Amino acid sequence: MNINKSRLQEHFEIISQYGKLGETGLCRPALSSIEKEAFSVVTGWMKEAGMTVRIDHCGNLIGRLEGKNPEGPILMIGSHLDSQPYGGRFDGTSGVLAGVEVAMTFKEQGIIPEVPIEVVSFCDEESWRFRKGLFGSRGIAGKLEPGELERKDKDGITRRQALIDFGCDPDKVEECAYAPGSIGAFLELHIEQGPYLEEKDRPVGIVTGIAGPLWLTVELQGFAGHAGSVPMNLRKDALLGASKMIGEINRIVRQVEGIPTVATVGSIRVFPDAPNSIPEKAEFTIDLRDIDLKRRNDFEQKIRTMIGEVADEFNLAAEIKEDTKLEPVECADWIQEIMVEESESMGLDSPKMMSGPFHDAMVMASLCDIGMIFVRCKDGISHNPNEFASFDDLAIGTELLYKTARRVTSKLNSLIRS
Amino acid sequence: MNINKSRLQEHFEIISQYGKLGETGLCRPALSSIEKEAFSVVTGWMKEAGMTVRIDHCGNLIGRLEGKNPEGPILMIGSHLDSQPYGGRFDGTSGVLAGVEVAMTFKEQGIIPEVPIEVVSFCDEESWRFRKGLFGSRGIAGKLEPGELERKDKDGITRRQALIDFGCDPDKVEECAYAPGSIGAFLELHIEQGPYLEEKDRPVGIVTGIAGPLWLTVELQGFAGHAGSVPMNLRKDALLGASKMIGEINRIVRQVEGIPTVATVGSIRVFPDAPNSIPEKAEFTIDLRDIDLKRRNDFEQKIRTMIGEVADEFNLAAEIKEDTKLEPVECADWIQEIMVEESESMGLDSPKMMSGPFHDAMVMASLCDIGMIFVRCKDGISHNPNEFASFDDLAIGTELLYKTARRVTSKLNSLIRS
Repeated sequence: MNINKSRLQEHFEIISQYGKLGETGLCRPALSSIEKEAFSVVTGWMKEAGMTVRIDHCGNLIGRLEGKNPEGPILMIGSHLDSQPYGGRFDGTSGVLAGVEVAMTFKEQGIIPEVPIEVVSFCDEESWRFRKGLFGSRGIAGKLEPGELERKDKDGITRRQALIDFGCDPDKVEECAYAPGSIGAFLELHIEQGPYLEEKDRPVGIVTGIAGPLWLTVELQGFAGHAGSVPMNLRKDALLGASKMIGEINRIVRQVEGIPTVATVGSIRVFPDAPNSIPEKAEFTIDLRDIDLKRRNDFEQKIRTMIGEVADEFNLAAEIKEDTKLEPVECADWIQEIMVEESESMGLDSPKMMSGPFHDAMVMASLCDIGMIFVRCKDGISHNPNEFASFDDLAIGTELLYKTARRVTSKLNSLIRS
Repeated sequence: MNINKSRLQEHFEIISQYGKLGETGLCRPALSSIEKEAFSVVTGWMKEAGMTVRIDHCGNLIGRLEGKNPEGPILMIGSHLDSQPYGGRFDGTSGVLAGVEVAMTFKEQGIIPEVPIEVVSFCDEESWRFRKGLFGSRGIAGKLEPGELERKDKDGITRRQALIDFGCDPDKVEECAYAPGSIGAFLELHIEQGPYLEEKDRPVGIVTGIAGPLWLTVELQGFAGHAGSVPMNLRKDALLGASKMIGEINRIVRQVEGIPTVATVGSIRVFPDAPNSIPEKAEFTIDLRDIDLKRRNDFEQKIRTMIGEVADEFNLAAEIKEDTKLEPVECADWIQEIMVEESESMGLDSPKMMSGPFHDAMVMASLCDIGMIFVRCKDGISHNPNEFASFDDLAIGTELLYKTARRVTSKLNSLIRS
């Protein structure tokens, strides 16, 4: 192996302390002081690898390994160091540490890449804090939307304020966008977060594309009242309506057998939230994903229609807000081919597979060709403290990432010359 | 009229400022600094009425108007100054201010009651802060339960700590209990919190009994996972199970037409509460009330059985905790008779009626005979900022309370002599 497995493992063990939750879990919110501390540790490793390091105004940590051709299109490698509120150590962090390990291996072997390599920890991939994520990669892709700096977290802190607290200048987020053509390709290593590779008994997989997520927030308005005195038939109970909707969303996407579509209601809150008050308001999220955009759109329509009908049935006013709507994307054929060849050269038979979860690579696909490597994860568990990937598998994935990076940098350089 | 309507209204207008929410709402949590300020204002009025005033170690505000026979059984009059988190100005407060007005009228008319009158604002009738209420009246009745000082509010503050912050000594709560026989009768004026008196076009009603509330908390445990990668058929989604249960609870109590049973799920929370994580835990409350204890017990059994079945269906572990279980109580016939006679002497035709909501009177029934007066409330709305009762109606109710108190104190005194 070219990469250093024990160093990679050591980096994991150190970084897992920043936001440690229980024995094996992690809570490292985007733009938190914990993430800032983790950035500072990773900055040290990036500098060891000979990189120049900066945090941009979107809260992205970016290390740059200069290329023989400094003006050449960049190979960007990255993922994210923020985690779910009740998450694991490997989601996101794996891709950042693998990127750092690739840069360290270049340096160690005395190889200066033909074009620059930038290793990035993107800001707020996880999306839960402000209910709209992929913030850092969208900043780099120039895809931020009006008003999103004013979105608030559960404590009422705006993203604008969180950026300021992190040391960024929110008035300069647009300066984070890279010029068209300046990035030649993007690579991301990530744990699979599903059971496929484990079933196939393979340490790594080569991703062919990423399912598109749709995020909606549903707000229902009924009428509060005393739980002891308002007769059942006169109530406008927002939670009762929400409950029926949640059941129906599940029923709708499961009508068709054997499709990979998933729908989740992960967050709900009611108001006034007292045992003896009829809920006046209920607010819940919908996460709908599919690799087939037409099918996802059909399900969205069915869900929207159902929400209107159930709201009428329960005498509620319903409002549906769209938080995120991304189309499925494909990984570049030429990068997949390189991965297949390098995987075979390592004696692996790595399956090709789709990604249900979204990743920063999905946003980066609007700027450049992308490629993704998946690493097997135990029992398919992710977004959970029990999330686990073995260091053997992570080392294999990182080695494949290194080999792919070497070929991609050469390829990008040859494209300029030709 | 004996009582002073404009003074009563002025007291309402002043006290409504303490915890004012929007234009007409109120949020005055039990044992909060806002409630303490309200206590201090009411203490001033009690002293004007010639009462001696104390706050006991359960957080009850108690004013005592001495009787000709200081050893005679006390007539207690009271309600509560704490409110729902998103509540109105009249629930509870009406009964305390009416009690104060009764004492002021005694003093103004130079009448010393035969037996002592105590006017009480009971601590935490509303129950939402620690999910177990009627704390002050249960303290007076000697009905506190082991461990309840350790119950926490949403911010993790225990009732013990809240009592300390309020100036009470939680180690002395048991000293608040009154000796058996020391209280001769209890009277409470309260807004109806339902639409019955408005439909009948009557300002006040005479309460015959109070429905018994059962409060349960249901905790469901599933398994968290990534919303994008765990196939629908492999999930253990705690919110999906909770949603079905909430719908079923409603269906169960509505199976029988024309019964007054009410069931409410007013509070729900999920964990980890992120849009892209499958809910691992869901916790919700059930409030079940009936005037018929056997019927309530039957419904409770059906609900418990259903929860077990639905938990199995969704692969969840379910735990049901009992927070409060009170039996329905009856108002004393002799007090109802006095109220009917005094009501007729005022030219009123006041209907007799049951109470769906529970009140401190329900607890006091374990110590002494009780009587309750209901005051008409607009559109039956309560536990809502739109809650409203007219000052005309409140004055009529308070006058009836005064006349009843005069007769009850004489009656209590005659009982000793006989």
